[in-house]
Amino acid sequence: MRAGIVVTGTEVLSGLIRDANGPWLSEALRSFGVSVEQIVVVGDRPDDVRRALDFFADFDLVLTTGGLGPTADDLTAEVVAGWHGTSMVLDEALEERIWGIVNGLRKRIGGEEAPMRAGARKQAHVPVGAVVLEPKGTAPGFLVGSSPLVAVLPGPPRELQSMWADAVKVEPLASLLASAGALERRILRFFPLSEPQIAATLRELDEGSLPFEVTTCLRRGELEVATVYRPSEAAAYESFEAQLRARHGEVLFSDDGATIDEVVQRGLDGLTIAVAESCTGGLMAGRLTDLAGSSAHVLGGFVVYSNEAKTKFADVDPTLIEAHGAVSPEVAQALAFGARSRFGADLGIGITGIAGPGGGTPEKPVGTVCLCVEAPWGRDDRVVRLPGSRADVRDRTTTVALHMLRGLLAQRR
Amino acid sequence: MRAGIVVTGTEVLSGLIRDANGPWLSEALRSFGVSVEQIVVVGDRPDDVRRALDFFADFDLVLTTGGLGPTADDLTAEVVAGWHGTSMVLDEALEERIWGIVNGLRKRIGGEEAPMRAGARKQAHVPVGAVVLEPKGTAPGFLVGSSPLVAVLPGPPRELQSMWADAVKVEPLASLLASAGALERRILRFFPLSEPQIAATLRELDEGSLPFEVTTCLRRGELEVATVYRPSEAAAYESFEAQLRARHGEVLFSDDGATIDEVVQRGLDGLTIAVAESCTGGLMAGRLTDLAGSSAHVLGGFVVYSNEAKTKFADVDPTLIEAHGAVSPEVAQALAFGARSRFGADLGIGITGIAGPGGGTPEKPVGTVCLCVEAPWGRDDRVVRLPGSRADVRDRTTTVALHMLRGLLAQRR
Repeated sequence: MRAGIVVTGTEVLSGLIRDANGPWLSEALRSFGVSVEQIVVVGDRPDDVRRALDFFADFDLVLTTGGLGPTADDLTAEVVAGWHGTSMVLDEALEERIWGIVNGLRKRIGGEEAPMRAGARKQAHVPVGAVVLEPKGTAPGFLVGSSPLVAVLPGPPRELQSMWADAVKVEPLASLLASAGALERRILRFFPLSEPQIAATLRELDEGSLPFEVTTCLRRGELEVATVYRPSEAAAYESFEAQLRARHGEVLFSDDGATIDEVVQRGLDGLTIAVAESCTGGLMAGRLTDLAGSSAHVLGGFVVYSNEAKTKFADVDPTLIEAHGAVSPEVAQALAFGARSRFGADLGIGITGIAGPGGGTPEKPVGTVCLCVEAPWGRDDRVVRLPGSRADVRDRTTTVALHMLRGLLAQRR
Repeated sequence: MRAGIVVTGTEVLSGLIRDANGPWLSEALRSFGVSVEQIVVVGDRPDDVRRALDFFADFDLVLTTGGLGPTADDLTAEVVAGWHGTSMVLDEALEERIWGIVNGLRKRIGGEEAPMRAGARKQAHVPVGAVVLEPKGTAPGFLVGSSPLVAVLPGPPRELQSMWADAVKVEPLASLLASAGALERRILRFFPLSEPQIAATLRELDEGSLPFEVTTCLRRGELEVATVYRPSEAAAYESFEAQLRARHGEVLFSDDGATIDEVVQRGLDGLTIAVAESCTGGLMAGRLTDLAGSSAHVLGGFVVYSNEAKTKFADVDPTLIEAHGAVSPEVAQALAFGARSRFGADLGIGITGIAGPGGGTPEKPVGTVCLCVEAPWGRDDRVVRLPGSRADVRDRTTTVALHMLRGLLAQRR
């Protein structure tokens, strides 16, 4: 089965926003055993959308996202209809349903009735012969034609995801998806491991001779090896994975798709934690509380930017700051200890560093971060020098802290 | 000038990561007056990369990203060379420079010499006649051929961005970019404004008759209207903007490209601020400290997940929690006041809510958030009910708080 995705939206093409729908749909299709071959991003211009559809003319399935709104530049449904040789017709019952939604919005946020009503009517035009997918925001979606079947879906990610859940149960999409074979995917995550190292390993294992595709990817400082294979290739995959484990097992931290955040949350089982952070400014606590259920572990944190706040809230001895500077292993330790004792938590994280772009010195350049993770059974201290922008340094710091935490949790007695 | 982008990488296509390079390059080209017509995302398979290049055969400029690494599946340079009818040749001096970088990595992180050296040699193969762009990580880039000129760039965003800064100064890319005309872009940002409302306005202004393209986009709860126009269309644009201002001026918060974060940072001029937050778990303080220079304003914050922490650190009276619940306007007020007074800040933000997925009740469903922003000259309190996932609710909460802060700063005397 050949499948492609057309993402429409000048805001995506011009760099205003980063597309989330292509990757999401690609992932969703994979769970049905369908590999997406190509994603095309085009602006909201009829010729460009048509050209993208032409690109997929010999495919079985095309998903489009975006261009279903009430404005004049929203024309995906009309273009798809024309491309499949059909026209648009007003569905009056659908118009009433859409108007019910839009009118509710109008009553809450405001706006004039006549032009908003015209927008609802525009959205109620349906390709002749298409299956209508009920709106999740204000826009309906459609299943249009065959060879390829085109599923026309909205742009806002929440609407798209909710409509997709309906669409996969509706004919003819349901049958088409059922006809695809199964695909397995395994993801191995390593830290720390460099790209040249994994490249060397894959070279030794003669990657080219493997019956499946292996993807390596460095993300947030972690190295990911993702493999998609048919069930018949399972034995070959297991042997491949065993060889990766033999070479890099000691830095393998996840083999079941879990992120480092999930691995740490599992490891915290029954324990509590608190944070005192400076350069990450709240992102460390924010990351620890990203996952549902984190309130069972995370007691809270201090964001202590100024020296006074470090002393006042996290009990950092001012003579330590004077002697070693605010960015020092000694202050990171004091922050971890202060967070732990003030919150009465089992574990404490202390972070102090220079996120930049200013504030660097020859001895402590931008990117220098001192971290400490403390538990009743031990402690891990590190001074790292992280590359990249202010945002990179702040984000990467939280990744390093989570890996320190994981290591410490593994030593729990 | 017609320009397109080919993003290669099975990890992008399969949904493992969200592409940042396409949007970034699109934005970079726009600053040279070049509008990107299409972005194609393909896996690291030679046929698919060739097919994507075919798609752009009659273009002037194609940028490729990714597929320059040391592994066997990194084959973009080779495919581009073949597509332009040339072959690859080893550049021995380049090989030595790459090996210098890789060997440094090897000494720090580890790995065996022979296979890593083989990876460096693979990366030192250059399309005959190409201009070499020096590596920013381990991979060199290339400028290959003409009509279209193909700029072959690496995948890691930091490497790509740094190499692009070099590439635009190098022939023949420098001349090609210089031949493009100028483009202006204006971005107007509104909050709160719904999509059906802006659609109605654009309908009234007869959007289709405008000489330029207008893009509307709802992002993080804010409505953005972006317009790209030629300098000759400036008068028409000014008239269009004036009409938008006449209709929605009171909810226009940015007309110079500034984000709400930047607008707030400017408004904080000379003032200090502190945060006490529950459901956002550190993300509010994290967002306030995203921008360089934030340490002049942000004194710090408390992440107070438990009721005990709310009382102990932010001085929330336990009888308030008992009487109104932890998620209540009264507790949000007490948090804002506690943050302000404990840190000795001019302004305080208090946030308490139910981010989900658990913890909702019929009276206070998931997405209910109570916010308070307090200044010496006044206060803003709100209870909002935000849609979406836990991550959506947490992120949207910080946007609402920033808009409350902006409103309060505008009343500063």
